[in-house]
Order: sequence, then C-alpha cells, then structure tokens
Amino acid sequence: MATGACNPNPEEPQNIYDQPEFFAGYSQMERFGHGWSKALEQPLFLSLLPSLAGLRALDLGCGAGQLSVHLAESGASEVVAVDVSATMLHLARAERGHPCVQYRQASIEELAFEPARFDLVVSSLAFHYVADYARLIRNITTWLTPGGTLVFSTEHPIYTARLPGEGWLPEEPGGWRIDNYFVEGERTETWFVSGVRKYHRTLATLIDTLLRNDLRVDRVIEPVPDAARLRDRPQEAEHLRRPMFILIRATRA
Amino acid sequence: MATGACNPNPEEPQNIYDQPEFFAGYSQMERFGHGWSKALEQPLFLSLLPSLAGLRALDLGCGAGQLSVHLAESGASEVVAVDVSATMLHLARAERGHPCVQYRQASIEELAFEPARFDLVVSSLAFHYVADYARLIRNITTWLTPGGTLVFSTEHPIYTARLPGEGWLPEEPGGWRIDNYFVEGERTETWFVSGVRKYHRTLATLIDTLLRNDLRVDRVIEPVPDAARLRDRPQEAEHLRRPMFILIRATRA
Repeated sequence: MATGACNPNPEEPQNIYDQPEFFAGYSQMERFGHGWSKALEQPLFLSLLPSLAGLRALDLGCGAGQLSVHLAESGASEVVAVDVSATMLHLARAERGHPCVQYRQASIEELAFEPARFDLVVSSLAFHYVADYARLIRNITTWLTPGGTLVFSTEHPIYTARLPGEGWLPEEPGGWRIDNYFVEGERTETWFVSGVRKYHRTLATLIDTLLRNDLRVDRVIEPVPDAARLRDRPQEAEHLRRPMFILIRATRA
Repeated sequence: MATGACNPNPEEPQNIYDQPEFFAGYSQMERFGHGWSKALEQPLFLSLLPSLAGLRALDLGCGAGQLSVHLAESGASEVVAVDVSATMLHLARAERGHPCVQYRQASIEELAFEPARFDLVVSSLAFHYVADYARLIRNITTWLTPGGTLVFSTEHPIYTARLPGEGWLPEEPGGWRIDNYFVEGERTETWFVSGVRKYHRTLATLIDTLLRNDLRVDRVIEPVPDAARLRDRPQEAEHLRRPMFILIRATRA
C-alpha cells in the first residue's frame, strides 16, 4: 500500500497521532481541544464513571489528557495516563499537567502492571486500535482490584464492519453498508490520511470476552443525539441511522 | 396495506403462524420439524441452558414444542409452553405431548403469572414479535426466582435494522444495508407472505433493559457457521457476512 500512514511493521501498533498530516486534520476537531466534553458520547461516558474519590485510575489512550485531568480533578488519588503518541503527550503535559496525573508514553499493548494495581480503568475510543482484544481484557482484569471498574468507549461493530471505503451508500434509498461481519481483524480506513488501521470485532466478542474474564457488564450504551442536540448540530442526524460508538461499563467480580 | 398477513388491529399481536399461506411456507423449513436442533443457532441455544433437573420452566413462543419437550426430557419438572398459534399448538399436542409439558394458547403479551413462578424462562426466536420489550423483560424478571435463568434468541439488531425489502445489496461490491438504526419499533417484512410484523430494537435496548431489571448478563452469542457446517450447507456462507440472530443468557440477581 502506498501510504505514509501505515506502520512499516504490521505487528507493531500504529502510531497514527504522531503522523503530521493526520495530526493536522485531527487537531481541527472540536473533540480534540477544550470541546472534548461536547463530543456526542462524552457526557454518557462521564455518566458511567463511579465515584472517583481516592481511586487509583489508569487511562488507556489518554491523548491530550482531558479525561485524565477530569478524573484527578474529580478526586482520583492517582491517574496513570498512557498514550503511544509523543505529540499528544507533549500537549497533555503542556496544557493539562496535574500533580496526580502521571503521563507515560507507551503503547497499550506493551503495558505491564502488578495485579490489582488500579481501582478504575478507563479508555476513550482507543480499543479499536488494539489488535489483540482478548489479551487486553485479560490484562485489564488482572490490573483491576476485585470490585474495580472498567469504563470504555470504542467504535461500534456496525461502524467497523463497513466495507473498505465509505459506509454510506451514495444512491437512493441510501443506508449504511456492512459486510464480512464475522471476519474480525484489521480494517484500514481513510481518516485525514489513508491507511488508518483499526480492528473490527463482533459485538459478541466485545461483550462475551468481558464476561469470560470475570467482568460483570453493568451498562451498555449506544450514543444517539437528542432533539436539542440535533437542532444545534443537524449534521449529526446521521448518528440516528447507524451507531458509531458503543460504551460499556463492567465491574470485576 | 393490501396484505392478508397483517393483523387488522395493529395494537394486537400478529398471529402470523395461523395464516395458512405463511404456514404452508414455514412448515417446509428444516427447523420446523424434526430438524429443529439442526438450525444454525440451536446447538448454541442448548449450550446456554442450565442443569434442568427439577426446574419449573416457561417457554415463550413454543411453536411445535420441540424445545419444551427437550426441557422436560432433560429433567424439568414442569414446562409451561405458550404460543399464540392454534396451528402450532395443535401440532405440539399431537406430536410432542409430555406429562410434564402444559401447552397453552396465549400471546406472550397477555400472560400473567405469580412472582417467582419459574426457575427458567426460555424463548427461541419469538421476542422480535413482541412490541413492548421493556414490559416483557419486567414481567420475566418478576416471574423468575432469584437466581433463575433467562435464555433467549432473537433476531439481531443488524438483521432487523435493514430497510424495507431485502437487506442484501444486489450490486457489486454487495453487502448488507441497514438504516434508521435508532428508530425502534415495527418493521414489516416479506417472509412467505407480505406484512410479517417484527420489531427492531437496538443492541443497547436488548442488553441494557436486562441490566436495568436486575438481570445479570452471563453470555452473549452471535451464531456463525463453522467450516464443517459450511461444507454441508454452502448457502449459509451469508451468515458470515451479517449476523441474523443473537443469543443471550441472563441470571436474575
């Protein structure tokens, strides 16, 4: 593939946020900056968080640190905030330093912690970049204390199951096209640049993997804009037609 | 709508299986008769059942009684087997009578039982005919004993979210088309006859409604044919492309 976005080693996590052309596009998004909490799914994500006072938290794919700082400002005693992107962490440290937040550059895949290290693990829209979901969930289960909480958002299986190219059908009657739903694994897309690597998983894989790891699923949310939001952002009417994200909260038994 | 299949009163459950033209088609399906356990999802459904010895069970939408008799022959002490179709119950009583199975003609919507009446509630591919899922799940929760089990299969949200007409796209590159995913409610389809009334619900509605009713979700399965099955039934390759069913087991807290 002739693309500057693809990682030369397909076995290694792709560090797309450090790719200048991608970053130039991504950094224009409202969710990138101070508007992060206005993103469609973020109020729902925050509603899934437990009471944060005194919790030791891990933020997987912290980006520019908005959620990490929110956790610390809401009472978490310690936040380990991890991202693979030096660009994002540079921003996080410059703009969102906090004495309880420790930023660390690493891929989610290479992390190692002692068992029961955290009371809370959060991840906002990062799991679809991780190839080995089963291993990820096994790790998180180990890192959580009994009774600890996992809250994450990820791209919805219906969103990642689209064919290469655009999911929207250009012709009447329109609609959203999916295929090869049960063929899990890498699906690249063009998002600011070509070759952005994401991983499609089925819904059953997303949920059943949690259940098989002693994680009790508490909530499942598919964000959808309400009428007031649609008045302000009519372009989000497309989010009534197919789900883009799924949010899950689970508790370690 | 000019169709003999629609119920004249849209508020009442549609009794499609008593419609002769529908029944003539449906009764030709392998899953209708002795081959019921060969249907794609049935081995997985049976794998979700708890140990049946001594259980009092309710089968919602029992059809010709195959699953009800399986429960009784596997040790259930009592099976209340409910279906709205007189035609199906006639067959069930004629071909699958069992001293522990009580067949009853009723719609799922009109049922009433005392609290904690059952240890197990099962339903095979009937919930997508029920308009009010929230009420259904509230009722089932009440009817179950604490620790009791619900096992059901239903049409997958991706399957019910197709536009009117065929989900498969006729032209290259093909695929499965969905739209208006978040518009829940009635979607009619042509299945042997026109106007077969089913209800689309989102995945979050399917699962989160259970969680909000003190039902702990234990397993979520999307059936897919394995290689051996595909060798015998190459036409089932379409089930790799989009999910048709979802199976869920939940336990009452």
